Amino acid sequence: MNNYFSSNFKLGVLGGGQLGRMLLSETQKLDIYTAILDKNPEAPCATICNEFHQGDLLDFDTVYNFGKRVDLLTIEIENVNIDALDKLEAEGVIIYPKPKNIRIIQNKAQQKNFYKDHNIPTATYSHYAYLEELKHSFQNGIIAFPFVWKAARFGYDGTGVKIVRNFDDLENLPSGECIAEKLVPFKNELAVIVARNQNGEIKTYPVVEMEFHPEANQVEYVICPARIAPTIAQKAQEIALKVANSFDFVGLLAVEMFLTENDEILVNEVAPRTHNSGHYSIEASYTSQFEQHLRSILNLPLGSTESKLAGIMVNLVGEENFTGDVTYKNIDKILEMDGVTPHLYGKKTTKPFRKMGHVTIVNKDINKAREIAQIVKETIKVVSK
Amino acid sequence: MNNYFSSNFKLGVLGGGQLGRMLLSETQKLDIYTAILDKNPEAPCATICNEFHQGDLLDFDTVYNFGKRVDLLTIEIENVNIDALDKLEAEGVIIYPKPKNIRIIQNKAQQKNFYKDHNIPTATYSHYAYLEELKHSFQNGIIAFPFVWKAARFGYDGTGVKIVRNFDDLENLPSGECIAEKLVPFKNELAVIVARNQNGEIKTYPVVEMEFHPEANQVEYVICPARIAPTIAQKAQEIALKVANSFDFVGLLAVEMFLTENDEILVNEVAPRTHNSGHYSIEASYTSQFEQHLRSILNLPLGSTESKLAGIMVNLVGEENFTGDVTYKNIDKILEMDGVTPHLYGKKTTKPFRKMGHVTIVNKDINKAREIAQIVKETIKVVSK
Repeated sequence: MNNYFSSNFKLGVLGGGQLGRMLLSETQKLDIYTAILDKNPEAPCATICNEFHQGDLLDFDTVYNFGKRVDLLTIEIENVNIDALDKLEAEGVIIYPKPKNIRIIQNKAQQKNFYKDHNIPTATYSHYAYLEELKHSFQNGIIAFPFVWKAARFGYDGTGVKIVRNFDDLENLPSGECIAEKLVPFKNELAVIVARNQNGEIKTYPVVEMEFHPEANQVEYVICPARIAPTIAQKAQEIALKVANSFDFVGLLAVEMFLTENDEILVNEVAPRTHNSGHYSIEASYTSQFEQHLRSILNLPLGSTESKLAGIMVNLVGEENFTGDVTYKNIDKILEMDGVTPHLYGKKTTKPFRKMGHVTIVNKDINKAREIAQIVKETIKVVSK
Repeated sequence: MNNYFSSNFKLGVLGGGQLGRMLLSETQKLDIYTAILDKNPEAPCATICNEFHQGDLLDFDTVYNFGKRVDLLTIEIENVNIDALDKLEAEGVIIYPKPKNIRIIQNKAQQKNFYKDHNIPTATYSHYAYLEELKHSFQNGIIAFPFVWKAARFGYDGTGVKIVRNFDDLENLPSGECIAEKLVPFKNELAVIVARNQNGEIKTYPVVEMEFHPEANQVEYVICPARIAPTIAQKAQEIALKVANSFDFVGLLAVEMFLTENDEILVNEVAPRTHNSGHYSIEASYTSQFEQHLRSILNLPLGSTESKLAGIMVNLVGEENFTGDVTYKNIDKILEMDGVTPHLYGKKTTKPFRKMGHVTIVNKDINKAREIAQIVKETIKVVSK
């Protein structure tokens, strides 16, 4: 176990974006040599990891060759070449999360089938190999407006999700494998991060509550702990544990859920990695999600998931109508506020709704934290120069 | 002010050891491009900074040429070529802490003179340009056994300090400029970190209490807050503020003090930088000392210096009788304990008493934290393979 630290052990990470960047703070803290693969030569991790390789995460040879150079491989993003991971695993490279788990999660239809097969509550859906099948189903009255269309593959930050309300929406859907999901009215979106190591030790973080931007379908505030009844929080954590155990998961699993109007919890989707809904943990938790990810994939004892303080995260996304070299207007103003920590992801250019950073607000009083978060959100602006 | 973030601004740091390494976590968080100069090509910062330059921090040309490449220059260690800094400053490079402050602090005799000139309480001392002068002073009965000898220049981690109790000790002192200080019986060693920015905004961290290793003269435990009377804590903070203001200091200043048996506070020495006595702040404080250092030198608003929880730091130093490739025995055991965070500095080889890392213990209850710290100290061992 000790041989991870200060030795020739080499961790490989597929993806060098902001999640990789925050992971690097932890690999540096534990002195774990880290190699990163990313397509973008200016990726947020490029100059600050021990070893950077430029290459396409979806290309078989690129992923395979990178994987052969490392002792343990993990991911920062789930859209990677799984065939290469399967071959690497067959050849003895340790990979967490497991390629078979990533394969299911990559495909939203397979993900939904998995929930159904394991009795995990989720919104009713139908699965279509082609868009034409969906249209056919609609014409036959099997599905009706409104419904939620989701691309089976490579949706990210809402780009593969659409609420279909009328014929115009239906006509403009992209082709390809997809699902049509029942539009469930919900009170709240919740998330629970679960960590599980190879020994089967498993822990959940507190339930967080998410507030979304109405247009961009991106999270604006993540609030920890969620302001919900303890019985509901417990139910959400139990469901998250069931999902992780059903996958026999190793690593960090972020489980996103809807709390319906009649207090039912439905799993929306999962991410097999560190997640935006866990960024608050850097300042608010005893163990940040990034350190916990390392502990889980290295089969180390898991750290405490409890909070030191209430935490709220505000995403910093590019303002509308600004594209170009980024600047952070009024960042000095938010630095004047106690318990406010900005994280900038090192991306050089901003565009509307691009995730450029986040700000964490911690406070003993969650309501005070929420007030400060609002002020932070109204003060700092991500614009171009 | 905004132009520090995500722009062409380049921060230069003289020194790439563990303090630089922990600073890099913060420059990464704020996306501040950071270049590092260090003599050791395998320095803890070498592969994880944006730009690494190998070179001698005491060499005029090396420091000067490095300084010309950056927009703002700071230090990780005070033993640097000050003549080069003076020239850079004269040519318009912004340098914090100020070279004239570093010059005084570099030399323990000048440091003591500074305290005397500014009515800052410190132990009585005499100053000698050569060791022979000290011996002469002894022969003439001006000083007597026991006394504390301190080399004026380049003492670090106790190597330039000796308690002289007899003729043998006296004969074995190194030559060169030095001071002889009255040996003051003390109850406690305290430290206060002060942050001050260019605008003159100034804040102190809570007083911490240090427990030293009896042989190696290195800190074993740093306890925050110090378990002392509030009136004494207030006095210690007032003295620390006076020191920083007397220097017209910009940056982070760690003020080490003795609490004498009759509750007098004497300044022992200061460090013009982030300091071992502030490492607890990464986990325990609203603003870590490393982030605070950046805020102070960039003339940003200072962050809250309050604590989220009680914090105790245990230094991880090389065990006696072990020299070679490092390994951390029982690190997995301490990872099982809640609120325990190891920091490994990325040094490849251990030797007796070498600082290889530290562990922070946070807890709501300081006594519980102290108990866990003891167990941590007795459990993890830095040895060679």
